Amino acid sequence: LSWASATACNSPVNSPAGARLQEVAPSFLVRGARIGGGSFAVIAGPCAVEESLDLPVLARKLAASGACALRGGAFKPRSSPSAFQGLGEPGLLALAAARAASRLPIITEVLDPRDLPLLCAHADVLQVGSRNMHNGALLREVGRAGLPVLLKRGMSATLDEFLHAAEFVASGGCTRIVLCERGLRHFDPAVRNLLDLSAVPALQQRARLPVIVDPSHGTGRASLVPSMMAAAAAAGADGLLVEVHPHPTTALCDAAQALDPAAFTSAMRAVEAVLHALGRELTRLPEPAALTAS
Amino acid sequence: LSWASATACNSPVNSPAGARLQEVAPSFLVRGARIGGGSFAVIAGPCAVEESLDLPVLARKLAASGACALRGGAFKPRSSPSAFQGLGEPGLLALAAARAASRLPIITEVLDPRDLPLLCAHADVLQVGSRNMHNGALLREVGRAGLPVLLKRGMSATLDEFLHAAEFVASGGCTRIVLCERGLRHFDPAVRNLLDLSAVPALQQRARLPVIVDPSHGTGRASLVPSMMAAAAAAGADGLLVEVHPHPTTALCDAAQALDPAAFTSAMRAVEAVLHALGRELTRLPEPAALTAS
Amino acid sequence: LSWASATACNSPVNSPAGARLQEVAPSFLVRGARIGGGSFAVIAGPCAVEESLDLPVLARKLAASGACALRGGAFKPRSSPSAFQGLGEPGLLALAAARAASRLPIITEVLDPRDLPLLCAHADVLQVGSRNMHNGALLREVGRAGLPVLLKRGMSATLDEFLHAAEFVASGGCTRIVLCERGLRHFDPAVRNLLDLSAVPALQQRARLPVIVDPSHGTGRASLVPSMMAAAAAAGADGLLVEVHPHPTTALCDAAQALDPAAFTSAMRAVEAVLHALGRELTRLPEPAALTAS
Amino acid sequence: LSWASATACNSPVNSPAGARLQEVAPSFLVRGARIGGGSFAVIAGPCAVEESLDLPVLARKLAASGACALRGGAFKPRSSPSAFQGLGEPGLLALAAARAASRLPIITEVLDPRDLPLLCAHADVLQVGSRNMHNGALLREVGRAGLPVLLKRGMSATLDEFLHAAEFVASGGCTRIVLCERGLRHFDPAVRNLLDLSAVPALQQRARLPVIVDPSHGTGRASLVPSMMAAAAAAGADGLLVEVHPHPTTALCDAAQALDPAAFTSAMRAVEAVLHALGRELTRLPEPAALTAS
Repeated sequence: LSWASATACNSPVNSPAGARLQEVAPSFLVRGARIGGGSFAVIAGPCAVEESLDLPVLARKLAASGACALRGGAFKPRSSPSAFQGLGEPGLLALAAARAASRLPIITEVLDPRDLPLLCAHADVLQVGSRNMHNGALLREVGRAGLPVLLKRGMSATLDEFLHAAEFVASGGCTRIVLCERGLRHFDPAVRNLLDLSAVPALQQRARLPVIVDPSHGTGRASLVPSMMAAAAAAGADGLLVEVHPHPTTALCDAAQALDPAAFTSAMRAVEAVLHALGRELTRLPEPAALTAS
Repeated sequence: LSWASATACNSPVNSPAGARLQEVAPSFLVRGARIGGGSFAVIAGPCAVEESLDLPVLARKLAASGACALRGGAFKPRSSPSAFQGLGEPGLLALAAARAASRLPIITEVLDPRDLPLLCAHADVLQVGSRNMHNGALLREVGRAGLPVLLKRGMSATLDEFLHAAEFVASGGCTRIVLCERGLRHFDPAVRNLLDLSAVPALQQRARLPVIVDPSHGTGRASLVPSMMAAAAAAGADGLLVEVHPHPTTALCDAAQALDPAAFTSAMRAVEAVLHALGRELTRLPEPAALTAS
Repeated sequence: LSWASATACNSPVNSPAGARLQEVAPSFLVRGARIGGGSFAVIAGPCAVEESLDLPVLARKLAASGACALRGGAFKPRSSPSAFQGLGEPGLLALAAARAASRLPIITEVLDPRDLPLLCAHADVLQVGSRNMHNGALLREVGRAGLPVLLKRGMSATLDEFLHAAEFVASGGCTRIVLCERGLRHFDPAVRNLLDLSAVPALQQRARLPVIVDPSHGTGRASLVPSMMAAAAAAGADGLLVEVHPHPTTALCDAAQALDPAAFTSAMRAVEAVLHALGRELTRLPEPAALTAS
Repeated sequence: LSWASATACNSPVNSPAGARLQEVAPSFLVRGARIGGGSFAVIAGPCAVEESLDLPVLARKLAASGACALRGGAFKPRSSPSAFQGLGEPGLLALAAARAASRLPIITEVLDPRDLPLLCAHADVLQVGSRNMHNGALLREVGRAGLPVLLKRGMSATLDEFLHAAEFVASGGCTRIVLCERGLRHFDPAVRNLLDLSAVPALQQRARLPVIVDPSHGTGRASLVPSMMAAAAAAGADGLLVEVHPHPTTALCDAAQALDPAAFTSAMRAVEAVLHALGRELTRLPEPAALTAS
């Protein structure tokens, strides 16, 4: 009995982690934006959708800087029941308006299976957050919802546990899954979490799912995010999930880790330079004509 | 912004961890068995209810050795969708039969809010496991179910996060909550998890909920469990959650960490000696007459 | 290649951790005070010897409360070269004066092999601290010095690494070694370190050296120390290493974790009660007459 | 009292970590090879110098692939006294012969202050390993030796502790110090250590010392090393420390993590591409004529 398998109950697990992911797609399209398959998909946006945000303006800026999808939380997982829990449906409508303005597909988080009908009416990709990576009941329901799923690594999950969680999503029928490394619990207050970039090649060597990196939660310090964006590109990641906020210091959520649009634009230039040096490209949304034709 | 609060979004949290637990009971009765309030409640039983187990016989042995409640999983949280997921309703019926035979109240785990009606029809206490400690949606629903709740610490949760999770349960209206330390993710394969006994006094100094210890998951090694049972009693814990299986080597779940009934009985003698030395007592089920009279 | 062995280079290690500890004594006497062998040895004193401390008075109080040895640092391992580094030889002379007043043998830390002649002229037991557990050069020299050695676990050492470090000491010829668990690096600022009490039985099951516990560094919070003292006794430890300071709030070193003499006395009463309940006794210094006769 | 400062004794530390590093050079030359100052210095070689290695041939290959210095251990820090401890002086002579053949300066590890005269007679840079990062006695002596020092981060050291260790070296008079991130203790057996690339910008933002990355110890898996080499370059590191062995599977030390020369050459091409994309260059040894002229 190895240590890894001992972290679960010891009934027979007939397959190693990742073995049940044979049906999963190595790449897929979301409203024309390719995730996986060699191109580099950058998903950006605010941690939470806030009432005062002009999301359409922000989304157009993000697209102009090279993002191919918009992230934003309408339902927020919170440590305390007294913290801001997200706008709910108005938040989803705000995301949809930003999509209409920018053509960026929308990625947003699911916390409760009962929210799925509402979320599926608006979102393009469903995100399962770190706090729910071990929530098998949610993983299975999300896998049945018919949308692509972005699955974040638990805050102290092994790679095997991460792949097993992806299997839960796949067991619901989902074949479009992207994994996201977002930093691990850490002892050094110099950072909020410890970003594990070695997880990128280690996961890619075990399974063929796209693997992206969240350097915002992964460090919790805006000053470290641009370096980690470039490092993730060089490490072979399939993309990024980056928090960008028009005025980070006023953000209701995760102010210390969000980039402002200018810093994001500057960091994207370095990312693009690194990608080109390694023979890769940013995922770009197709021109509207191309989209119609395809 | 302190490190602890930085682990969540930074919207205003007006109260420190535990401040919203004022309404919670420092002790309560479960079918006559007292949890908290100075007495020491030992909850024992198999990790999972298995078809081949004679649960009534096991439950009577556990009661004779000093247990005041029976644990057993009918729905099992698993790392992989291909692992044994529990017996479901037949498991609950087997637990109820064991209760009828032994008078021990039943504690069993909730994984999915949709299982709550079924679970509430049979269980005396609802357990939320480590993998769901950050699952706010489940915590709130469980808090609304009307039963006492045993909440296990997440595998890398801070004490503040643990208390905030208890606040989620309390926000659903539950006032009977017991916290359970069950070991933290660890780098040394000598143990499965690293039991944090200092969490017992540290939690008791921050909030007035009962705090019990699970030395079975907390070490993952049956040979270490008796020492940690006695240590938890000496540390001032309000009780224990211990895995006992008639034949640990054949257990479908967590074989390496379960005690057999003889080892449990022997360990309980040491626990009782430590308790007496410190002026405390094991929680005992009231005699049937007393129960009727109360 | 197992994970544990992979933490070192992979040249042939012909023996598992602890196998080279066959010659080590399961118990030994230090000026008449027994370490190991069933009795429970409590070593207490200030973190560092400070000029303003009345050590003889403190030592007599500690002895009266049940301590059998006096700890105190004359050379202090510090994180920064600008921090207080200890009194050096005057500190050793102060310890010797306290020993003369109390008959308590002296335990003090070695940082540099070049200090060994001076330390051996005064000390009864040499301590190697956590920061030097991986310092093979020092371990070997300390093992050649002819005195018993108290070896503290590194702040993130596995049990195998800890036992290998003890083998380095033994390879210098030392047969009187006591291991000390003192808490591991931890992510939760609620405590300074995470005390691993499961290491006590786990080490005792692997090797026959005495194993003691330092709940002061092990938690870093004076309010948690008494509970962990009693828990260590119940876990089967062979003793304790406890920081006691006449006026903790003014201590030059580790103020937050030191007990004052009254709190120590009170905690020792609980320790003694737990030991008696388990059929064990505190190590007591022999009466002067007995000492002379033996 | 913050958590970080609480990890040491609490006597007055008048300066934050790194404040005493004002005199330290942001870049310096080692036999003409620049460390820091914008160029990217790659140090490569075997973990340990072994008798059967043809080091001059290996060194010429490494230089041809872009390395500017040769690493190799003559004295090896080992977990167990029964493991291979290094060749000692013959190892140093073999390194010197390889330097004569390749012009690569030599970097080798110090374990014991008493070895310093011998090491200083042969080495160009002294390495202090992870196991000794907290060994203040050694750090100070190494800082007095007159050679540049490569200081590796302890296996669970905070960044503040790492900078304080550099201050110990600087307090000996050394002004040429390079820091090396080499992976942290980790719970997931998928890797040997957890490489912390965010430490690169975080350290550079706190102090002006060069910071390099060891992806070999940092992951312990050769298959992950090339990705982490490129990622370190993109993260803004000042260089790399990479294990290369002619026949990794036969290496006496750390076989699982060494690259063979062909894999190293291939990985260096990607590193160089990333550097060029970001406007940077590999450190190259000057031509012999240039060296004479300077």
